[in-house]
Amino acid sequence: MTGGYLKGRIRREDILAAAVTVYGEVGYHGSSLREIAKRAGITHAGLLYHFPNKESLLAAVLERRDALDAAREQLQARPGLEVLRRYLALAEHNVGNPGIVDLYSRLAAEAVAEDHPAHEYFVRHYRMARAGVLESFRAMADSGELREGVDPEVAALTFIALMDGLQVQWLTTPDEVDLVGSLEFYLRSLLTVGL
Amino acid sequence: MTGGYLKGRIRREDILAAAVTVYGEVGYHGSSLREIAKRAGITHAGLLYHFPNKESLLAAVLERRDALDAAREQLQARPGLEVLRRYLALAEHNVGNPGIVDLYSRLAAEAVAEDHPAHEYFVRHYRMARAGVLESFRAMADSGELREGVDPEVAALTFIALMDGLQVQWLTTPDEVDLVGSLEFYLRSLLTVGL
Repeated sequence: MTGGYLKGRIRREDILAAAVTVYGEVGYHGSSLREIAKRAGITHAGLLYHFPNKESLLAAVLERRDALDAAREQLQARPGLEVLRRYLALAEHNVGNPGIVDLYSRLAAEAVAEDHPAHEYFVRHYRMARAGVLESFRAMADSGELREGVDPEVAALTFIALMDGLQVQWLTTPDEVDLVGSLEFYLRSLLTVGL
Repeated sequence: MTGGYLKGRIRREDILAAAVTVYGEVGYHGSSLREIAKRAGITHAGLLYHFPNKESLLAAVLERRDALDAAREQLQARPGLEVLRRYLALAEHNVGNPGIVDLYSRLAAEAVAEDHPAHEYFVRHYRMARAGVLESFRAMADSGELREGVDPEVAALTFIALMDGLQVQWLTTPDEVDLVGSLEFYLRSLLTVGL
């Protein structure tokens, strides 16, 4: 790793941290690249060197969040029930962090178009999220812990989709949606063993 | 119904139809109230009289779509398995109409804040959607068609959330998501009878 490369990484990290702060304070439409640059102690042009637009910066914020989530919840554990439990812990963590859930939901809905700067991030994110639980559903199918007839691929796809769909409904009417309980219910309907 | 009231209703209907057309042609960010007014054959000020901003117009577009969906798929049938089958038919219809699904997903993610002009629409929409399937899950619980231990309320909430979450993933990677098949899979996991 060269000194210049390392410096660039640190700078990038400062910008992402500043983006999270500004977004948390003023929300999606209020956050400007100018304000984020100011907080990161960098010029507007300097920020544009790292991120050409707001969408690519926000996609990088979400990519960093994925890495932090995976490390904190240890999502890379040995495939099986324990991994699914850790996804429930991630949902529990999300309940305490509505700001980043809001950013994720908005950017996901905006980025469905192929030419959106965050599109590639979401294609990758969905594939990785599905693959992350797929291995566990497969392991559980092999050990008889998955109900007969449950296809691990469809179980993985629907589990991730359900998390996403519940989040928007929960952000809209927090008192009417039990985010973690609903996911637990869903997992129970697929498994032959308790959580 | 007075003549003036009727004329206002027709005008409103023209505007909503024009909004659907313009949105279909140029997408979310491209659609302007000015262009929609032009297509509806009304002045910009005339349009603002009916809808003070773009978000309230788009919420009205979605409200109209809910009514059209309910009529076309006959979602108000006698509670039970048949109603759930009609929701699958609605998902099938959505597969052929990605534009309105895109509008729905974006506005839903934007409107989580209480002060958003479309917030009240989504609070109402989610409640109605959940209530619409809840009665059917309850009827099926009574007749033993719901698996033991499945709470109809949670089944209703998760069914609607899964539809929403699948739609965004499907719009992002259409080749990787079977919208209707995934919902069928989910229903099968809750029921003791076939679809």
